[in-house]
Amino acid sequence: MVPLKNDRLIRALLRKPVDRTPIWIMRQAGRYLPEYRATRKRAGDFMTLCKSPEMACEVTLQPLERFALDAAILFSDILTIPDAMGLGLTINEGEGPRFAHPVRRRVEIEALPLPDPEIELRYVMDAVRLIRRELDGRVPLIGFSGSPWTLASYMVEGRGSRDFAITKTLLYDDPQALRQLLATVTRSVTDYLNAQISAGVQAVMIFDTWGGLLTARAYEHFSLAYMQQIVDGLVREIDGNRIPVVLFTKGGGQWLERIADTGCDAIGLDWTVDIGDARHRVGDRAALQGNMDPSVLHAAPERIREEAGAILDRFGHGTGHVFNLGHGVTPTIDPDHVGSLIDAVHELSIPYHQ
Amino acid sequence: MVPLKNDRLIRALLRKPVDRTPIWIMRQAGRYLPEYRATRKRAGDFMTLCKSPEMACEVTLQPLERFALDAAILFSDILTIPDAMGLGLTINEGEGPRFAHPVRRRVEIEALPLPDPEIELRYVMDAVRLIRRELDGRVPLIGFSGSPWTLASYMVEGRGSRDFAITKTLLYDDPQALRQLLATVTRSVTDYLNAQISAGVQAVMIFDTWGGLLTARAYEHFSLAYMQQIVDGLVREIDGNRIPVVLFTKGGGQWLERIADTGCDAIGLDWTVDIGDARHRVGDRAALQGNMDPSVLHAAPERIREEAGAILDRFGHGTGHVFNLGHGVTPTIDPDHVGSLIDAVHELSIPYHQ
Repeated sequence: MVPLKNDRLIRALLRKPVDRTPIWIMRQAGRYLPEYRATRKRAGDFMTLCKSPEMACEVTLQPLERFALDAAILFSDILTIPDAMGLGLTINEGEGPRFAHPVRRRVEIEALPLPDPEIELRYVMDAVRLIRRELDGRVPLIGFSGSPWTLASYMVEGRGSRDFAITKTLLYDDPQALRQLLATVTRSVTDYLNAQISAGVQAVMIFDTWGGLLTARAYEHFSLAYMQQIVDGLVREIDGNRIPVVLFTKGGGQWLERIADTGCDAIGLDWTVDIGDARHRVGDRAALQGNMDPSVLHAAPERIREEAGAILDRFGHGTGHVFNLGHGVTPTIDPDHVGSLIDAVHELSIPYHQ
Repeated sequence: MVPLKNDRLIRALLRKPVDRTPIWIMRQAGRYLPEYRATRKRAGDFMTLCKSPEMACEVTLQPLERFALDAAILFSDILTIPDAMGLGLTINEGEGPRFAHPVRRRVEIEALPLPDPEIELRYVMDAVRLIRRELDGRVPLIGFSGSPWTLASYMVEGRGSRDFAITKTLLYDDPQALRQLLATVTRSVTDYLNAQISAGVQAVMIFDTWGGLLTARAYEHFSLAYMQQIVDGLVREIDGNRIPVVLFTKGGGQWLERIADTGCDAIGLDWTVDIGDARHRVGDRAALQGNMDPSVLHAAPERIREEAGAILDRFGHGTGHVFNLGHGVTPTIDPDHVGSLIDAVHELSIPYHQ
């Protein structure tokens, strides 16, 4: 493999000095880009796009053609694992994901197969290999998975939910059944991320989209404990290169110290967290990734620049910060505004690294 | 006015000794009760129910007939003020609130009238007077309002929203216009709550349902600053009786110290906060109200009892705790489960007050 021409992301995640703050954007390959919408239309269906390594590679690279991003992130969906387990995933725009066969009873949980990442999820690994080849060392490629709690919530509900009442009823009424489901999903996520690492991703991120809906105690026992098992089970170094792990719990701002305790390399922050306070709380135990409010991208470029500057200023001097939004970029954003943000971060961050 | 026969709520909110932890439940008068659904059906339309003092009184008292609750809360909606300002509110079940005339441009903001609570909102004050008479001192009556930020968000969007993108665009692009809207709403909320206090409510609560969607900085400047003005402008004592003020920001667990700084009497906690940590952080500056996950009410009564016990235990000995859910009770909950919770709190809390 060729060495990285731009290794800012990896260096910042490992808290090594950088010349400027690296930036990438959650959902940077997505519906706000007309070229993405064109490929999506050609694919017909969202999962067809995910399952075609060629098209997944194409959309992964699209934002890099427009913007001076410091990382590519694999284009895929967080629900590929339950789909590979046979739950029958469909994703319709505006409706969100649906599973034809939700998993709620113990007998269903016990019957769940453990997918082989190089068989049932081979399309993901093929996409990783293809993207690495096409990137040719330009920037690192980030792999990812949903967290066990987040995947289990979708698997139990069969769809997104405002309060995940069915999953929480299981949590309170039959915690052992939920633990069994989480254990199976955890093994599968670990295998899946290790396979992505073998295939070539250079950093991994775990998206705990629904961890913030839990009580502090339930978060520890039903989300964080399983992310801990994944962190412990990942291949953290390959050919002498450290593979950084980022944990992101949306709504997890109250639990940053506990997240750092897992030994992850970096913590993703949503926009509700003050990144200066977060740095103070986490110290040198982990890097921080985030955290501009995605809504700021609706505003004028000069306001975007001010907000980006305020976040850089709150983080302060030195390394350990990867700039990002606090959640994914939304479909109605003007791509030029995203470009303004990226340029502003690169330009305004230089003094903080001198 | 007759003296209160049960003043546990007021005493606990003011951190005075009590014999057991008082409990009331957000949305205790609501769709989970068949008797509520019957009245609602008779009214035809939700706002007709709110605007009839007799029916509002009837549903306010319904949960007190079933359960040994320590407080009644005025049955009303948080959007009565914008409705009185002429925005044309309709509430359809399953769809949420809608305004026929959202307010987005400066000229619309400047034209907003300041409703007179005893004229345009007289139906609320009449309901308060009627409920006080019917309660006859049995338990205290809580009045409430939405927070300025929460009301303004609905007024700008014209409806509920996942990310309140239009309001946030205003926040970032034209903060002065948003400040003008918030100032008008703040004056109106202050008048409205003072009128409720004059009419007879014995405690007031401000629901900042959407404050948790803001960044830490925007929360301070666009939500908390205006709640501070309300706290400063409220009549805090009437006939020698202190009127406690509770501030509740859903998703505000990171900002409890700042909320306590307003001088409110109590802070409402959503279920994501560990109430033991919250007590440690807030100390004797404010009482705490909350915070069981509403989803626990789906579980079996013995599990509800365990969870209630765990929260009482985390809060620990002494006064300053009003038990509640961390958000409203949902429509599919079995009323008997609510009864189990109330009995459990009364029974299990006794040792903590000895």
